[in-house]
Amino acid sequence: MKTDIEIARSIALKPIDEIANQAGIPVGSLEHHGKHIAKVDLSEIPSTPPSGKLILVTAITPTKAGIGKTTVSIGLALGMARLGKRAVVALREPSLGPCFGQKGGAAGGGYAQVLPMEKINLHFTGDFHAITSAHNMITALLDNYIYQNRNNPIDGLSEVLWRRVLDINDRALREVVTGLGGSVNGIPAESGFDITPASEIMAILCLATSLEDLRRRIENILLGYTKSGTPFTVKDLGVAGAITVLLLDALKPNLAQTTEHTPAFIHGGPFANIAHGCNSILATRMALAHSEYTITEAGFGADLGAEKFYNIKCRTAGLSPALTILVATLGGLKMHGGVDEKELKAPNVEGVRKGLANLDRHIENLGSFGQTVIVAFNRFATDSDEEIEVVRAHCASLGIGFAVNTAFSEGGAGALELAQLVVDTIGREPSKPLTFTYPLEASIEEKAQLLARKIYGARSITFSAKAKKQLARISTHGWDRFPICVAKTQYSFSEDPTAYGSVRDFDLEVRDVVINTGAEVIVLVLGTLMRMPGLPKSPQAQRIDFINGFIEGLS
Amino acid sequence: MKTDIEIARSIALKPIDEIANQAGIPVGSLEHHGKHIAKVDLSEIPSTPPSGKLILVTAITPTKAGIGKTTVSIGLALGMARLGKRAVVALREPSLGPCFGQKGGAAGGGYAQVLPMEKINLHFTGDFHAITSAHNMITALLDNYIYQNRNNPIDGLSEVLWRRVLDINDRALREVVTGLGGSVNGIPAESGFDITPASEIMAILCLATSLEDLRRRIENILLGYTKSGTPFTVKDLGVAGAITVLLLDALKPNLAQTTEHTPAFIHGGPFANIAHGCNSILATRMALAHSEYTITEAGFGADLGAEKFYNIKCRTAGLSPALTILVATLGGLKMHGGVDEKELKAPNVEGVRKGLANLDRHIENLGSFGQTVIVAFNRFATDSDEEIEVVRAHCASLGIGFAVNTAFSEGGAGALELAQLVVDTIGREPSKPLTFTYPLEASIEEKAQLLARKIYGARSITFSAKAKKQLARISTHGWDRFPICVAKTQYSFSEDPTAYGSVRDFDLEVRDVVINTGAEVIVLVLGTLMRMPGLPKSPQAQRIDFINGFIEGLS
Repeated sequence: MKTDIEIARSIALKPIDEIANQAGIPVGSLEHHGKHIAKVDLSEIPSTPPSGKLILVTAITPTKAGIGKTTVSIGLALGMARLGKRAVVALREPSLGPCFGQKGGAAGGGYAQVLPMEKINLHFTGDFHAITSAHNMITALLDNYIYQNRNNPIDGLSEVLWRRVLDINDRALREVVTGLGGSVNGIPAESGFDITPASEIMAILCLATSLEDLRRRIENILLGYTKSGTPFTVKDLGVAGAITVLLLDALKPNLAQTTEHTPAFIHGGPFANIAHGCNSILATRMALAHSEYTITEAGFGADLGAEKFYNIKCRTAGLSPALTILVATLGGLKMHGGVDEKELKAPNVEGVRKGLANLDRHIENLGSFGQTVIVAFNRFATDSDEEIEVVRAHCASLGIGFAVNTAFSEGGAGALELAQLVVDTIGREPSKPLTFTYPLEASIEEKAQLLARKIYGARSITFSAKAKKQLARISTHGWDRFPICVAKTQYSFSEDPTAYGSVRDFDLEVRDVVINTGAEVIVLVLGTLMRMPGLPKSPQAQRIDFINGFIEGLS
Repeated sequence: MKTDIEIARSIALKPIDEIANQAGIPVGSLEHHGKHIAKVDLSEIPSTPPSGKLILVTAITPTKAGIGKTTVSIGLALGMARLGKRAVVALREPSLGPCFGQKGGAAGGGYAQVLPMEKINLHFTGDFHAITSAHNMITALLDNYIYQNRNNPIDGLSEVLWRRVLDINDRALREVVTGLGGSVNGIPAESGFDITPASEIMAILCLATSLEDLRRRIENILLGYTKSGTPFTVKDLGVAGAITVLLLDALKPNLAQTTEHTPAFIHGGPFANIAHGCNSILATRMALAHSEYTITEAGFGADLGAEKFYNIKCRTAGLSPALTILVATLGGLKMHGGVDEKELKAPNVEGVRKGLANLDRHIENLGSFGQTVIVAFNRFATDSDEEIEVVRAHCASLGIGFAVNTAFSEGGAGALELAQLVVDTIGREPSKPLTFTYPLEASIEEKAQLLARKIYGARSITFSAKAKKQLARISTHGWDRFPICVAKTQYSFSEDPTAYGSVRDFDLEVRDVVINTGAEVIVLVLGTLMRMPGLPKSPQAQRIDFINGFIEGLS
C-alpha cells in the first residue's frame, strides 16, 4: 500500500470554495490560505443552537501507536457522505513537536485523511504560532513589569506562575533559569517552556464561545500574586487588548477537505493528557450549523479525552452528543490482555478476550454520561476474522452496536457499515442529555474524588502538600466553580503508564494543581507527566525532506 | 491629521489579483492569504537578470524616531506611478518585538504606507514564525543529539554555538541556563535567545538565491565543534531537509499594496544593526522582473544598511543599483549639529548647518561605491522653509540632486518632485557598476580595516582575544572568503551611540566574531550591542487593542 503522503499526493484537491459551498458557507465568509484552505468568519456560527447531530469518536486506552480515532472519524464522514448524509468532521490541528519527533503527523491516515496534509501538519494557517506568540508576549510583558518595578516596594510580584511555550519537543527547555548575565538582562528567575498544545492560551482559544469571551478569558488569566498576595492577571498588566489582537485570526476555524472532498473543520489542538484534548468550541459549533452530522474526536482514551469533552467542553458550550463511538483495535485489546508489545500482530484470541475488560470499562464509563455507545472496530491488514468475531460477539452480548471500519485502506467504502450503524443508532436510540461526573458546585477535592472513583476506578485520590496549598487559594478566591482537567498518563486508568487492562482500586495522588482562570479549568497533575515532550534517539525530522518537489516523511 | 491606522482603514483595498495583474503576475502564481495579500511563486523570478532599475533608499545616521526611509520609499513609488512609471517597492517585514515594544509597527506612515498594515505588522504570512520554528527546531534536535550521545566518547560536541530565537522583545531571555531539573531534562547548558530578525535563518532566507541555495546554506550552518574539533553542521545533524521543509512557504515573496494601490513586495526582515538589514534577494529580483523601477531600502543609516546592501546583498545577488537616495530630516541634522534632543522641533538654522557634516560623510561614503546619490528631504510639518533652504543650497553646492518629499501627509502628490528627480538622474547619470569596500579575497582583518577606515572613518580597529580565537578558526577552515557583517550601534559612525555628527579617528574593537557559514557572512560584534531587545517602561502593547471591530495602537 502507498504511504499516507503518497495517497495524499495522488488526490486532486477541489478548490476550497467548492468545499465551502457543499457546507453552505458563502465564499464571502472565507479568508483563503492558498487554494485549498480557508479561515471561516465567525459570523457563520449562528447564535441559536445549531440543529446538527454531534457524534464523539473516542477510544479504548491507547497503545504507543494509537488506536486510529482520527482515521475512523474521517472514514465515518466519508461513509456517511456515501449514504447521502451531510457529514463534516471537526478535528484538532497537529503540533509540530510530535510531527518532527515521534509521530510524523496527525491528519488521519491512508485513504481517510484531511488534506492538504503537508500544510495541515506543518504551519497550517499559523494558529499555533499565534498562540505561541501571544503566550510568550505575556511572559515578556510580565517580566518587564517586574523588572521596571524592581525598586518599587508596592507594585511587583512575589510569585510568578506564568511560563513560556514553544511548539516543539525540547526537553532542555522544561526547566530553565532566565535573566542571567547582569541586571541589564532582567532579574534571574526560574522559568520553563511547555509545548504550545499545553498553553493556557490554547485551552482558552478552544473553550472561548465568542471573540468577547476570548477577551474576557485572556483578561482573567492568573499570572502570579502581588507582594500583598492579590492575584495578578493579564488585565492588571494592561495588555488583554494586545493579546486579543494577536489571536484575532487564530480564533477563526479553518476549513479543509477530506480525501473524498467532504468539508473538514480543523481548529485548535490541546493535547488530551496535559490539557482538555478537543478542537475548538467555535469549530464544533460552526460544523454543527453546516451539517446534519458533525463528527468530532477527543484525544487519547475515553477516560481522558471523552471525559474532558463532556465535563469541560460540552458543559461550557451547551453541547450534548447524539452518540459516542468507541474505537478499538486488536493491537490495543491484546496489549490490555497482557500480550507482549512485540507480539501484538500475531493472532491471539485469548489475548483479545482478556483485553475486552478495558473495552468494557470504557463502555461503562461512557454510559455514565447518558451516552449511547457503539464500538467501531478499526481493522488492520494483519487482523484475523476469528479475533474480530470475538469482539463482535462480545459487543452483541452487551447489546452494543458494532461495526468494522476499513477506511484506512478503502476510504468511505470501508466505513459504510459503520456509517449505517451510526445513522440507525441515532435514529433509534440517541443519547440522553449529558449527565456530568461532578456538579460544578462541588469543591475541587470532591470533583477529583467523584472523577477518580467513577471514571478511573481508583480507591483513593489524595493531594500533595503543594497541591493542598493551591486548593486553599482556589477556595479563597472562589475558583472552585471551574471544572477539573486531569493531566495524567494516557496509557492507563491509573497514574502508572505500564498498568494496562482494567486496573482498579489503585491510589492516586494529585502532585500539583495549576489554576487556569482564563481557560476556567483547574488542572490536577497526576504522576510525573511532562508538559514538554522530548525527542527520541532518531527523530522523525531526520526522515522529513523535500525531494523532487515533494515533501517526504510526514504521515 | 489622522493616525497611520486611521488612514490605513480609510482606504478601500483593491483585490490582490488586481495588484498582481498590474505587476504582470498571473493569478495562477499567487497563493492567497486573504483577499489582499498573496505569496508569489518563485517561478515569477526569471533566471536571466531582470531589466528593471534598482533604487536604494538609505539615510543619514538616524535619531531614535528614525528618519522615515520606509515612508520615503513608498512615497517615491507613489510619485513615480503618478508620472506613469511602473514602480514597485521591495521592503522588509516588521518584527513583532518592536511592534509591541517601542515602535508600534513598521509599514511606512501617513499616506505612504503598505497595506493591509494591521496584517503586515502582526503575523502577516507567518514568515517570521516559520523562521522561529526552523531555528528552534535545529536547537532542539542539536540538544537531543548531544543528550542521546552523552555517554558516547566519540560523537557529541565539545562546543555549542547555536542559540534560540523568539520574535519578541524579552531581555530576560538573553542569557539563560537550560536543561535544569535532573538528567531527564537534558544536560545543563548556557543558552540564550536572540530576536528572530537576528537569526541566521533570517539572513539565509534573505540571501538565498533559490530553493536549492536555501537548502545548501541550511546544510552549511555551523552549530558547534565536535570533541575532535571538527565543525559540526546541520548537514551532520541530518535534518537539512526537515528544516528546508519548514521554510518552503516562507521563502516565497509576499505581495501587498501601497496606499495608492501599487504593488509592494514585503519579504524577510533582518535588522541592520545586528544583521545585514535588507529584504530578501528573491523579493528584490521578483520586483525587478515586474517593474521599470524597484525601490528598496536598507535599515538604519548608510554606514550600516547601505554598506551591507552593497557589500553583502548586491555582491551575492549580482545586483547593482542605478541610484542611491539618501534621506535626511531636519531633526536628524540638528541632532548631528549638537542640538538637544528636546529642541529638535524648534527652528535652528545653525544647528542644521552644523549637522550637514553627517550628510556629507554619507554622500562621500556612498560615492565610494560608485553610486550616484541624491538627497530626499523628508519634510515634517514643523520644518521651516529657511532651514530647508540651507540643506537645498548645500546639496546644490555639492552638485547633488535634492528634492523635498511630503508623501507622509500628501501621498504620491507629495513625492512628485522626488520622483521626477529620480527619473531624470537615472536617465542622465546612473550609478557606475558597484565598487566594493573590500575584496572577498582579503582576510577578515583586512576587510574589517578597509571597512572601518573607508566607511566609519576609524583610526584603528582591533580584535579582542576572544575575537582573535575565532579568526584563527576562520582561517583554518577557509571561511575568510565571506563578506563581513558588522553588528554595531546605529546611532554613530563609531561604537559610541552618543557620538553624533561626523566623528572620526576613533578606535574600534571587535568584541566578538560570529561565524555564519550558512548565511555566508562573518559577523563582527562591536560595542555592547544587544541581539535581543528589551521592553520600555510603558510598552506599546498597553496601547494596542481591538475596539468596535478595529485594531488600535499600530502605526
